[in-house]
Amino acid sequence: MAEPLVIYEVVDNVAILRLNNPTRRHALSSEVLAALKDRLGSIMEDSTIKVVVLRSEGPVFSSGHDLRELVGSDEESYTHIFAECTEVMEAIRLLPQPVIAQVQGLATAAGCQLVATCDLAVASEDAGFCTPGVQIGLFCSTPAVALSRAVNPKQAMEMLLTGIPISAKTAMDWGLVNRVVPEGQLEDSVMQLARHIAKASAYTLAIGKQAFYRQLQVDRPAAYDMAQRTMVENLLAYDAQEGITAFLEKREPEWAN
Amino acid sequence: MAEPLVIYEVVDNVAILRLNNPTRRHALSSEVLAALKDRLGSIMEDSTIKVVVLRSEGPVFSSGHDLRELVGSDEESYTHIFAECTEVMEAIRLLPQPVIAQVQGLATAAGCQLVATCDLAVASEDAGFCTPGVQIGLFCSTPAVALSRAVNPKQAMEMLLTGIPISAKTAMDWGLVNRVVPEGQLEDSVMQLARHIAKASAYTLAIGKQAFYRQLQVDRPAAYDMAQRTMVENLLAYDAQEGITAFLEKREPEWAN
Amino acid sequence: MAEPLVIYEVVDNVAILRLNNPTRRHALSSEVLAALKDRLGSIMEDSTIKVVVLRSEGPVFSSGHDLRELVGSDEESYTHIFAECTEVMEAIRLLPQPVIAQVQGLATAAGCQLVATCDLAVASEDAGFCTPGVQIGLFCSTPAVALSRAVNPKQAMEMLLTGIPISAKTAMDWGLVNRVVPEGQLEDSVMQLARHIAKASAYTLAIGKQAFYRQLQVDRPAAYDMAQRTMVENLLAYDAQEGITAFLEKREPEWAN
Repeated sequence: MAEPLVIYEVVDNVAILRLNNPTRRHALSSEVLAALKDRLGSIMEDSTIKVVVLRSEGPVFSSGHDLRELVGSDEESYTHIFAECTEVMEAIRLLPQPVIAQVQGLATAAGCQLVATCDLAVASEDAGFCTPGVQIGLFCSTPAVALSRAVNPKQAMEMLLTGIPISAKTAMDWGLVNRVVPEGQLEDSVMQLARHIAKASAYTLAIGKQAFYRQLQVDRPAAYDMAQRTMVENLLAYDAQEGITAFLEKREPEWAN
Repeated sequence: MAEPLVIYEVVDNVAILRLNNPTRRHALSSEVLAALKDRLGSIMEDSTIKVVVLRSEGPVFSSGHDLRELVGSDEESYTHIFAECTEVMEAIRLLPQPVIAQVQGLATAAGCQLVATCDLAVASEDAGFCTPGVQIGLFCSTPAVALSRAVNPKQAMEMLLTGIPISAKTAMDWGLVNRVVPEGQLEDSVMQLARHIAKASAYTLAIGKQAFYRQLQVDRPAAYDMAQRTMVENLLAYDAQEGITAFLEKREPEWAN
Repeated sequence: MAEPLVIYEVVDNVAILRLNNPTRRHALSSEVLAALKDRLGSIMEDSTIKVVVLRSEGPVFSSGHDLRELVGSDEESYTHIFAECTEVMEAIRLLPQPVIAQVQGLATAAGCQLVATCDLAVASEDAGFCTPGVQIGLFCSTPAVALSRAVNPKQAMEMLLTGIPISAKTAMDWGLVNRVVPEGQLEDSVMQLARHIAKASAYTLAIGKQAFYRQLQVDRPAAYDMAQRTMVENLLAYDAQEGITAFLEKREPEWAN
């Protein structure tokens, strides 16, 4: 029996999704996208999961779409593939749990979009990031949606127009990844970050993450309207009252969620 | 008689607002927010004020909301507090005069929001910035509105999801503060910047600041429509004609406003 | 006969536009704006041009508007000048070909806007960037539209409120330029970048550039809707099918466009 294309495990309330299609350089084929969508769907319902880590192994983090699916087919098929890919990206954004990308190699095209889409990203020193579709006639327009919301426009345009990879250090300077660590420390560093975040209330993480991306889409006054309502809702919840009381009493909080 | 919670003085047309509630780590309590709103309201009407500096003293710039006001109360009270806080933040943005934050210590939660909201910020080398609400069950959703409009999304998310402080240097790299200086030079550096800006026409500073934030909220073509109208209005005003003429005649301008 | 205000040549499918008004420090006078608009109009129709380079020579890249046109005239005239300037800026954005600014000196006000507007920018180490209108009574409100879409708000505000130039290195850190090179290598570096981009399909560059700026203006879900349609349209075109097939067959693609 073949190994699954996405390997799933849970460690200390942290769900780990590992891309597992090394012979295809962890391409986001239709099958892989479907597997990711399924897993994200079940994580969304699982209140024991507090943080999600997305990782892979080897010299390529993910090579993006499976190019064999993008030649010689028809409009309906292509439309389906990009719709499926967007659904996975949006599922990460809409997931109540924070998602951390753990990037060890080259993240290419939709693979780079995946990193840009995760809430946080940690890269090893030898990781790289590129959107090289322009070189094969297919501009990385859907990756550009996530990329141009992570880094500044001229930086995104440099990647999109040249297809040349940027280093992990440059990706951090630009805001595409949060931390760069030596390769041997990557997994530990990500798990330490995940465990740190997992100490928070799942309710608080969820209401905050969702409010963050919603308010980013609107103008500042509308954003404040939304965010004020979120603060009041959050404050009326048990976990906020418990957390603030515990802080004032100098003790550890005990979350309900 | 108690000292005022916000100390006010004017030096060389620069208004200085100093948070003065050190025993509460300069928390933005309802009383402090009300005092700030009052002061900003009178500065808005005062044509002799050209620049505003917001400062505090001690190891904490501002600890954010007074947590004692956020436990055991009701929806109406919480709604009032966040509305008041947003009013102060928006008053800074809508003020005709530029506002510079002078940050010497830790700016926390709504204290960090205050820095993000000011037009410019100068920090001492040992200043720090964090949004740690997540650790006490109350995600910093209103601070996120200002923070996510100052730095890139993954950087904002790192602060919001972890609550870990960033250094002044990192804050500068990310765009949250403009300059970092040794602690002993902080006040001089801010006043030098304020005096430099105060040499400009108050009319020009006001029309420019207001146009800047308005055009940021709309798409590029709409922004150009607004900005072109602003340029023409500005150009028809006395101070622009005087300023350009003085420049062409190689003499100092004499502003009407 | 006077030399043209904008000198035009084509090298290896790269169109080079050189500002040529050195006695006016390459000011964007009405005449220069009209000449640029004309040239951009013909480049838009010229399918042999794959990349555009905008350059000038001497200590000033461009000094912005011709100040003599901004004094002592009337509303209609000023309105016309800013409309013309916006048309040039928008023509660069709407041009199907990528545009690279080659910046050797000081880019001031609308000259800085020009750099911010180009898709990419390469600067020599001694280049500088400023928006000093505030010092002569005329806030750089139209330059602010492009500037605030290239760098973070506090960085834009520092330039706009102080008028103080930033270095090429700072401009790169902030995202206003992509690369900084020694002065003697500027032209070669830009032409190398232009030739690299020109290896791509003109069709692909055009559809990608246009989709990029359109999706930047809308919220993320709307951006994905647009970008998915763009991907399918792009994929159904000859150049994408040829490019992907060539890649899978490990041969060089032969573009139709």
